[in-house]
Amino acid sequence: MTLDSPVQFDSLWRGAQVATMVNGQYNTIEDAAIGVLGGRIAWLGKAADLPAYEALREHDLGGGWVTPGLIDCHTHLVFGGNRAGEFEQRLNGVSYQEIAQQGGGIAFSVKATREASEADLVASAARRLKSLMADGVTTVEIKSGYGLSLEDELKMLRVASILENQFPVSIKRTCLAAHAMPPEYDDKDAYIDYLCDTVLPKVAALGLADAVDAFCEGIAFSTEQVERYFKTAQALGLPVKIHAEQLSSLGGTRMAASFKALSADHIEFIEEADVKAMAESGTVAVLLPGAFFTLKETQKPPIDWLRQYKVPMAIATDANPGTSPALSLRLMMNMACTLFGLTPEEALAGATVHGAKALGMEDSHGTLEVGKVADFVCWDVESPGELSYWLGGQLIKQRIYQGVEEVV
Amino acid sequence: MTLDSPVQFDSLWRGAQVATMVNGQYNTIEDAAIGVLGGRIAWLGKAADLPAYEALREHDLGGGWVTPGLIDCHTHLVFGGNRAGEFEQRLNGVSYQEIAQQGGGIAFSVKATREASEADLVASAARRLKSLMADGVTTVEIKSGYGLSLEDELKMLRVASILENQFPVSIKRTCLAAHAMPPEYDDKDAYIDYLCDTVLPKVAALGLADAVDAFCEGIAFSTEQVERYFKTAQALGLPVKIHAEQLSSLGGTRMAASFKALSADHIEFIEEADVKAMAESGTVAVLLPGAFFTLKETQKPPIDWLRQYKVPMAIATDANPGTSPALSLRLMMNMACTLFGLTPEEALAGATVHGAKALGMEDSHGTLEVGKVADFVCWDVESPGELSYWLGGQLIKQRIYQGVEEVV
Ligand SMILES: [Zn+2]
Ligand SMILES: [Zn+2]
Repeated sequence: MTLDSPVQFDSLWRGAQVATMVNGQYNTIEDAAIGVLGGRIAWLGKAADLPAYEALREHDLGGGWVTPGLIDCHTHLVFGGNRAGEFEQRLNGVSYQEIAQQGGGIAFSVKATREASEADLVASAARRLKSLMADGVTTVEIKSGYGLSLEDELKMLRVASILENQFPVSIKRTCLAAHAMPPEYDDKDAYIDYLCDTVLPKVAALGLADAVDAFCEGIAFSTEQVERYFKTAQALGLPVKIHAEQLSSLGGTRMAASFKALSADHIEFIEEADVKAMAESGTVAVLLPGAFFTLKETQKPPIDWLRQYKVPMAIATDANPGTSPALSLRLMMNMACTLFGLTPEEALAGATVHGAKALGMEDSHGTLEVGKVADFVCWDVESPGELSYWLGGQLIKQRIYQGVEEVV
Repeated sequence: MTLDSPVQFDSLWRGAQVATMVNGQYNTIEDAAIGVLGGRIAWLGKAADLPAYEALREHDLGGGWVTPGLIDCHTHLVFGGNRAGEFEQRLNGVSYQEIAQQGGGIAFSVKATREASEADLVASAARRLKSLMADGVTTVEIKSGYGLSLEDELKMLRVASILENQFPVSIKRTCLAAHAMPPEYDDKDAYIDYLCDTVLPKVAALGLADAVDAFCEGIAFSTEQVERYFKTAQALGLPVKIHAEQLSSLGGTRMAASFKALSADHIEFIEEADVKAMAESGTVAVLLPGAFFTLKETQKPPIDWLRQYKVPMAIATDANPGTSPALSLRLMMNMACTLFGLTPEEALAGATVHGAKALGMEDSHGTLEVGKVADFVCWDVESPGELSYWLGGQLIKQRIYQGVEEVV
């Protein structure tokens, strides 16, 4: 091979602007070209600067903007049934208490998820997954947490694995066994014992989870209980994440930071000391505006502190049947701007590079750079700000997953 | 022909539940069949009750719910440019005043719309129209109002007509020449004179509008000015609609009711007397939660009064580049429930039967009944409440326009 040998690509895309999102900024490349080899980005720059190359396939995008594939880093996408009936009851004046007395709320989802077969859960989650993908998502995190028993938590995590095999999307599986109390337990410490002694070791042994998560809140588990559960996860070599400070300030975020948690999620009620702790531990703040909107919350996450201490902000759907029936990450970007005051650039970083970091995959995903996995989307827009601007709508021209163009 | 002759259909659909929305209620038909002849519903009922028939085509929907095609009765879908740049500037801390000084706001849209060719406007509006259609819309109202001169208002209305010819969707055209002040006028009365003397007569003579609309607000036109404009519309035989009481209470709604206005839109600040006047005149209340959300308004429309006086409530996107860049009517149904407290049944009535009434087409559209136009949608849902429950997502199985199944 001589110095003049042409560079080899499987595919080359050109004819669009690129927002690389390196360092969380647009970092625009105008009239760009992207060369892909073996599912990774092999060359990226201005088309005019392309070296001599040979490509098996060439694509002209015909205008628009290319961004990294969107990363939805917090979902509860696998569940039995749905809670549209409760949504309708509440709007017809039935109280939360009456609904709970009828076996509604999370208890309904746990019952329906336990009763559903693996195939049922795959089929229902697949419909929701396709909606996310159709709006630009190429990586989705899926949590367990409606099983709340060894068998049913494993079932949920297996369903997440099956979905990744069936669809052109990367899936990260998170064990959220400490989500709520199962009906057969009445002592929270006893349930945490069961998770530490039985569930987490089995999940780890089977390699069914990429991380472990807990809901730290008055209505769920205390900081001490979650700390015990996290110690077990840590001993098993699993990274942790936390649902914390959504409704009150219990110190869960600070505790999670001491475990170098990948992310602390919701965090409407965190204090300045929590933000400092997150900055030191490299913990991502995952903002969930769909839940904020659906629950009509009024306490916003402290965006100014997060900016001041340079804590990366990710944005996710929190897709779940109760508090955030959200099936579009782009809509969450709009809500993060409109409700929380993020800029469209911060919102796009939240759905790409910072989402990747919240899943511990920032080395391979989340930005467009040579060496990274070739997950990207070409949007029919004149500026990347349009991704946050429109409420709904179909903006995708092409979605490329691991270097392969998908029909969406 | 004997009594035993089979009923003739072009197409027959079965295999789903139907929410007919007659009288604004679900009025469910389980295991339904819909027979269509000549683009109209020829038979509707339980499949088990079908008479002897012959059908050229038969379709099994394979489950799900059928509703009337959605009707978006208030949009500004035709415009030049977009204002994502302003959206991004504002979130980066640039004030409304600075943006206005740079020629932003509605002045930007007027300039871009005037500069755009008819073909440009068709192409850009077509993308937005396709998004609405892909989420179940079969009828769309489109307003002029970024032209603000005879030539440019006519251009916008012609674009709306062209869109109807190009796509399987019904379009109602509304002349909103009294939307804002054009840059070449500084006297509001003089501009209203021009509209009454020149623009409205020409629009009527060319048959380019189905209704006439005005923006009655301190920042736009006074009640007296709009009244004068409405008198001209009335003399020309054109029904009227009004943007009123969005930011303050000026009495525009009451005045419009005296013209038997088809609808009064926004109406956050209406008083009880206005609601009574609407009830008497048969004026529909058009709720626009996308604008309420985007503008972070806090004064909600008085839903309890509207219910009490039985004023029909429609829901629309208000799709426009400044205050509601909304491209999904279903998302507006969710927001009407979450932000205004409508029930999912009221929200669906708002996007079907009451939307039809706001456009004066309730005799032919908006419900599923024998004799009505066969515009309907089959949704992949287990209950009609799911249409309001999910935030985003793709729920459509089939969209049928005038009896013809469309590929969406
Ligand atoms: Zn969650
Ligand atoms: Zn409007």
